[in-house]
Amino acid sequence: MTSLLPLPGVLIEPVVRSALLEDLGKGGDLTSDAIISFNRKASFVLKARQAGVVAGLDLVAYTFLLTDHSIDMHFHRPDGSRVAAGETIATISGPARGLLAGERTALNFLCHLSGIATATAEIVEAVRGQKAKIVCTRKTTPGLRALEKYAVRAGGGANHRFGLDDAVLIKDNHIAIAGDIRTAIELARASVGHMVKIEVEVDTLDQIEIALSMGVDAILLDNMSVKQLARAVAMVDGRATTEASGRITLATAPAIAATGVDLISVGWLTHSAPILDIGMDVPLEPCVNKHLN
Amino acid sequence: MTSLLPLPGVLIEPVVRSALLEDLGKGGDLTSDAIISFNRKASFVLKARQAGVVAGLDLVAYTFLLTDHSIDMHFHRPDGSRVAAGETIATISGPARGLLAGERTALNFLCHLSGIATATAEIVEAVRGQKAKIVCTRKTTPGLRALEKYAVRAGGGANHRFGLDDAVLIKDNHIAIAGDIRTAIELARASVGHMVKIEVEVDTLDQIEIALSMGVDAILLDNMSVKQLARAVAMVDGRATTEASGRITLATAPAIAATGVDLISVGWLTHSAPILDIGMDVPLEPCVNKHLN
Amino acid sequence: MTSLLPLPGVLIEPVVRSALLEDLGKGGDLTSDAIISFNRKASFVLKARQAGVVAGLDLVAYTFLLTDHSIDMHFHRPDGSRVAAGETIATISGPARGLLAGERTALNFLCHLSGIATATAEIVEAVRGQKAKIVCTRKTTPGLRALEKYAVRAGGGANHRFGLDDAVLIKDNHIAIAGDIRTAIELARASVGHMVKIEVEVDTLDQIEIALSMGVDAILLDNMSVKQLARAVAMVDGRATTEASGRITLATAPAIAATGVDLISVGWLTHSAPILDIGMDVPLEPCVNKHLN
Amino acid sequence: MTSLLPLPGVLIEPVVRSALLEDLGKGGDLTSDAIISFNRKASFVLKARQAGVVAGLDLVAYTFLLTDHSIDMHFHRPDGSRVAAGETIATISGPARGLLAGERTALNFLCHLSGIATATAEIVEAVRGQKAKIVCTRKTTPGLRALEKYAVRAGGGANHRFGLDDAVLIKDNHIAIAGDIRTAIELARASVGHMVKIEVEVDTLDQIEIALSMGVDAILLDNMSVKQLARAVAMVDGRATTEASGRITLATAPAIAATGVDLISVGWLTHSAPILDIGMDVPLEPCVNKHLN
Amino acid sequence: MTSLLPLPGVLIEPVVRSALLEDLGKGGDLTSDAIISFNRKASFVLKARQAGVVAGLDLVAYTFLLTDHSIDMHFHRPDGSRVAAGETIATISGPARGLLAGERTALNFLCHLSGIATATAEIVEAVRGQKAKIVCTRKTTPGLRALEKYAVRAGGGANHRFGLDDAVLIKDNHIAIAGDIRTAIELARASVGHMVKIEVEVDTLDQIEIALSMGVDAILLDNMSVKQLARAVAMVDGRATTEASGRITLATAPAIAATGVDLISVGWLTHSAPILDIGMDVPLEPCVNKHLN
Amino acid sequence: MTSLLPLPGVLIEPVVRSALLEDLGKGGDLTSDAIISFNRKASFVLKARQAGVVAGLDLVAYTFLLTDHSIDMHFHRPDGSRVAAGETIATISGPARGLLAGERTALNFLCHLSGIATATAEIVEAVRGQKAKIVCTRKTTPGLRALEKYAVRAGGGANHRFGLDDAVLIKDNHIAIAGDIRTAIELARASVGHMVKIEVEVDTLDQIEIALSMGVDAILLDNMSVKQLARAVAMVDGRATTEASGRITLATAPAIAATGVDLISVGWLTHSAPILDIGMDVPLEPCVNKHLN
Repeated sequence: MTSLLPLPGVLIEPVVRSALLEDLGKGGDLTSDAIISFNRKASFVLKARQAGVVAGLDLVAYTFLLTDHSIDMHFHRPDGSRVAAGETIATISGPARGLLAGERTALNFLCHLSGIATATAEIVEAVRGQKAKIVCTRKTTPGLRALEKYAVRAGGGANHRFGLDDAVLIKDNHIAIAGDIRTAIELARASVGHMVKIEVEVDTLDQIEIALSMGVDAILLDNMSVKQLARAVAMVDGRATTEASGRITLATAPAIAATGVDLISVGWLTHSAPILDIGMDVPLEPCVNKHLN
Repeated sequence: MTSLLPLPGVLIEPVVRSALLEDLGKGGDLTSDAIISFNRKASFVLKARQAGVVAGLDLVAYTFLLTDHSIDMHFHRPDGSRVAAGETIATISGPARGLLAGERTALNFLCHLSGIATATAEIVEAVRGQKAKIVCTRKTTPGLRALEKYAVRAGGGANHRFGLDDAVLIKDNHIAIAGDIRTAIELARASVGHMVKIEVEVDTLDQIEIALSMGVDAILLDNMSVKQLARAVAMVDGRATTEASGRITLATAPAIAATGVDLISVGWLTHSAPILDIGMDVPLEPCVNKHLN
Repeated sequence: MTSLLPLPGVLIEPVVRSALLEDLGKGGDLTSDAIISFNRKASFVLKARQAGVVAGLDLVAYTFLLTDHSIDMHFHRPDGSRVAAGETIATISGPARGLLAGERTALNFLCHLSGIATATAEIVEAVRGQKAKIVCTRKTTPGLRALEKYAVRAGGGANHRFGLDDAVLIKDNHIAIAGDIRTAIELARASVGHMVKIEVEVDTLDQIEIALSMGVDAILLDNMSVKQLARAVAMVDGRATTEASGRITLATAPAIAATGVDLISVGWLTHSAPILDIGMDVPLEPCVNKHLN
Repeated sequence: MTSLLPLPGVLIEPVVRSALLEDLGKGGDLTSDAIISFNRKASFVLKARQAGVVAGLDLVAYTFLLTDHSIDMHFHRPDGSRVAAGETIATISGPARGLLAGERTALNFLCHLSGIATATAEIVEAVRGQKAKIVCTRKTTPGLRALEKYAVRAGGGANHRFGLDDAVLIKDNHIAIAGDIRTAIELARASVGHMVKIEVEVDTLDQIEIALSMGVDAILLDNMSVKQLARAVAMVDGRATTEASGRITLATAPAIAATGVDLISVGWLTHSAPILDIGMDVPLEPCVNKHLN
Repeated sequence: MTSLLPLPGVLIEPVVRSALLEDLGKGGDLTSDAIISFNRKASFVLKARQAGVVAGLDLVAYTFLLTDHSIDMHFHRPDGSRVAAGETIATISGPARGLLAGERTALNFLCHLSGIATATAEIVEAVRGQKAKIVCTRKTTPGLRALEKYAVRAGGGANHRFGLDDAVLIKDNHIAIAGDIRTAIELARASVGHMVKIEVEVDTLDQIEIALSMGVDAILLDNMSVKQLARAVAMVDGRATTEASGRITLATAPAIAATGVDLISVGWLTHSAPILDIGMDVPLEPCVNKHLN
Repeated sequence: MTSLLPLPGVLIEPVVRSALLEDLGKGGDLTSDAIISFNRKASFVLKARQAGVVAGLDLVAYTFLLTDHSIDMHFHRPDGSRVAAGETIATISGPARGLLAGERTALNFLCHLSGIATATAEIVEAVRGQKAKIVCTRKTTPGLRALEKYAVRAGGGANHRFGLDDAVLIKDNHIAIAGDIRTAIELARASVGHMVKIEVEVDTLDQIEIALSMGVDAILLDNMSVKQLARAVAMVDGRATTEASGRITLATAPAIAATGVDLISVGWLTHSAPILDIGMDVPLEPCVNKHLN
């Protein structure tokens, strides 16, 4: 049993289909179709060119399934695995046209999601030994939220809310409009169902006290110094989940985790993580960096 | 007149619609709907928190148009503009619920595309004075290729092919399967229309000579040293477009451009550029970094 | 401020569009187009033929907006209002063809959702004075969950989870497969984010004790007698939300509510509530029951 | 050979896909994925908890096909069958996660459609021995018209028109706008094709005579007393199909059928029939009412 | 009042949207966007280059509405009008980019549908004075059936069934499988609703007699000689609608119509009619045949 | 190896799905479902009723795959083959209901695309021996561009650009707005990527000289006489691709080809080619023209 909740196939398939159509356009793969006979077979390996954590192999599977049903795929490592530079992740064999037509789409998914998983794993590693979990935010790439949230899980992180509709997060703008933090929490509590958690952003120790007294589930401590965080965590004393956020980096994360905060939320995992470089190569050959426009 | 080819509205609208539905889910913005009255008005500014180049304002416009028709938007600077840290990009006024419901979706588009435009502008600047153009690749985020290609143009770059179907790019795998470079080019030439350009990846000077003799439009010089590139460019001598590629960075780009190559293609513009940090703030207040999960 | 969270327009519009296409098919409204001139104007009222609670007026608005932009609509009462038999809910005026083309689609939405709101209001009324909230379930009509959840809110009820992905509900099957309730809760807690609540179905008092000791958010008391419920509620003693469920009717609800349970979940609100009969009539005429095939 | 016209798979599949996505959302089945190992197998039976008529098994089949290809399904009874309370309808075996992820969606379809089939069968039974057929109307649940029309057939009923475009039904509003019944019928006849039937709603015996003289295919007798109906049927004397409508119930249907009317149309079959309660249980165990939120 | 049933806007809009996206692709109108400033205005006329009958102006309207909201359109003649060669059909003014981006899509719809309307009008004219109506078939262009059926109406023709689901047409294959014509008709009658007409294809006079005795609505006389048709029509003697079909041309239609048949169905109206040549020109200039790739 | 670039399955499948839904509507194939038992098997052949060139067999394959998975298909000849009148193209066997439900959709695709391929092959044959290639235009049927472009290739023709976004074609309107041909070409060159070809329409010899001096890829010679074409071709002398266009027919094509022009573009291949008549018959029977409404 793993904590890596899988992505349902019915959710993956339409995303892959759209991505393939985006690349194949109205004429398909002009180059491969012109040069390669329809019955030519080939075999490729997906190989990591950097060390990292893999995520997105189901996307790869659907991509090749949709370019040619007869393609065989063997995945050597599951999502969430650490791979070394040069390590083979998967072997893909079948009609060469289908393999090449799907190559870029498959890699675009795999490299992007593995990049997120790898970035997550790095910061998870940075806070190892502390209780703090690393969580992602709603700062995701439009159209890919479910996939990116999954990649964060593959990297050992956890998910904050998935959208505006599955949890309440009261921020300073809401409080300003409501007039005060108490009114804001009351209004939220009155209108949402019992399965909806409520988190509130606080700026002062007074606000923490009010929030706790009203039984909020979580408290967001935004852009606080390590010292402020430590004080806030002590004050909360386990009565709510505490979340630190605001430009947290690999360098600053350990000290923040050491304050005893429950969660550290990191926007750049999903909006700015670079890809993990993975290539599709001819098997058993020395690794060559392929260029794909 | 600008070289920034616009994105058609019919293309933008469904992408924005999907992104909004991804965030609003089945219940909409639980927090704002609970706390803020439907007739409460507000005004926000979109403000850059870093210097960079803006791209994606039409996406912002469609986002708020779709959350509330009555929202007023004023864009102070067009796409492609350089903005300073702290500079206001747009002012958005209207019903507070619609503004907050669209905030994250609008920013996710704008920060992502402006990040690409900014990264492009940096490397374009790095090769200024040389004839080399910076071009992007097909290593794009699934579902966002048209938008990301546009962002590259907003940053002063140019676009390589948009998909597998609008141009031929013969790579080493194709040549290996065809047997030799001559056969590959002949097969391609024979099957595609007259409006389709043909580019071929070469490894040796011999291959360049063959490619030129067959009238290819462009030659891809992959992972070559500056010295090799210079020699290849001299050999081509204007008979085809020359493109350098392969892990080119801000640091290495100037020397590569100095070889006289026509194009430098850079995958990370679209697959690994970090966002440009832009926030939605209450106007006239000092800039505060907002946290949005 | 009301606790009636609105439905976003971007969510409503595609549902209405599909419903209209379902009715208009490939030829449109053969009857009206044949008999009525394109420039003939008409005015109709939407009138309740039974007392009840109205829900779904935005669906009506989008329906007529999509059949003819120039239709004027005046809604006399907002969603969530109680209306008497014979009371006018809305006045709709404009081109007669557009009005008749949209009539059935508009009413199908409005009668269905108002039926749910009315059924909800009845059982909410039946437990008035007790703290128990009435909540709906995932037993909804395929394709209409967001709308039906909204209608429950319009009737004064609250929403349980919206889908499998926004909260954890551990049922007896899960417990059986996990081996015991403790393991099941531990596994759930370990894999979901901090904004996800956990509810667990219990059969025995022992299970309640274990669940409470593990800090679950809610406890589902399924098919228990009033006596059992009262004992369970006393045992929980506010340490978790308690939910009664299982074939609860208007007749049995008051006694169940009197046990002090927090929530009463009622599947038939969304899967078996009859419509509220609302018709589209010529204004100022005596109410005639229209037949629409 | 049966009169139960089947639903095409290409029509069913997208409806099931949407319903599954509605339930799985962006994260899938959080509970089952957390608690149950991916390779855990299970077996369930779909069992009727009430006597009734089954409809919608293809929907069940597509649901589980889409959650996990490897699920085995055995349907013991075809659509249209009467089942007793406690009778097993289908056995479903395979990966437990896929079974649980699809459970609610499958049951939502099956219970809803079986409810319609059951309600239809009851009123069909009530008029047995008379020639009157029971027909449904366009008062259907948005998005599900084809399915609900099918369920009516499964219950032994017949279908009225499927939409505004496949037949003409001239109602009092049309007649009022046209000026008189003769003009309305002439206009309709002149504009529609030869495969389109024309039905007209009449209020008086004079109108029946005019309609018959113009060769309409069917006459709608709305909200008439049994006496009026008998007189109208006698007057028509087989020259057109006669349809009675207007708040017809199980109690009133026999007398109406006894007038010799050809059709009795019943809106509540599709808009207000309660579900047939069917559960997904562990096989061979005593039937336990499961609660599913 | 006209017999030209209009196409609903909700049906037109998605078809136009898809067609525009098909042409604009991922980059939009490269040529116009590069050469023409965004604020450049222009005015064009849609002008017939051949005499014919116009159909599809709503498609034109939606096309330009979707490329630029601010485009003004003036339609000089409605759908169904005869236009002379050189006659102006519409004037379109606004931003030049939007006009040129929509030009080909608008014309592709308009020329195709006007071609069908024109072909229909010619054969309608050829049988003028006879009672025979010209009807189209299901031999339509995939995706455009509703539009093409509409164009036939615009040309003065009538529509046969719109799909497999709105009427019964029993053909020789059905009869062969059923065993005999009587059985086939009985089975059809027993399973379809009262608003569904039944037509049967006959080969012999005996079959006609059987079909008539069973009360079919229409009889299809396929590939019969004029002599056979006349005999069949005489035999039917008004007891059913008679339809002649099978490779009927402008030349053969008058003699066929003279047999007294009710309907002449013509497949090539929708599958092989050439376009009506209509161009988008600069107004007031002499008509120049534009070339558009 | 053939120059017939295939259509990707992911592109074909949704088009076929839509076409089937268009025909099956909400009730499916009323006739076949009523008359034919679900387990009745049948076998049909697709047989050409005219000589021509076949295109679209993959569309046929997807159609029957979507009506019934168990249908067996054997294609005797590949796309691009010449077939004689009466020749069998494919044999299709399986459940009779699925075969008849898919018949018209399959044939609508196959006849339409084979019609285009046949028309293309005729004009290709007419210019045999000359170097001129026959190319299609953007004058395609909305929604079917990719398929029609493919059919042109199947007939031996080549494709011009696929949309507004994959190549530049500067026409007289663009030149008029830009002011002069030089400015127009400069603006285009400056804004598009290196993989985008530029073609320009010219009216005079002066314009040809300017265009050549600026290195355009192709020159469009619109509506020129054979004499003018010959002069223009001589003047270009291989420095650019030359394309003749404007109402070119089978009769005029040979003389135009004899001028030495590289390309002859023919709009009517895709907008006005009549279908190739292909029927679905019972095997081994004499060919009978089936009528399908």
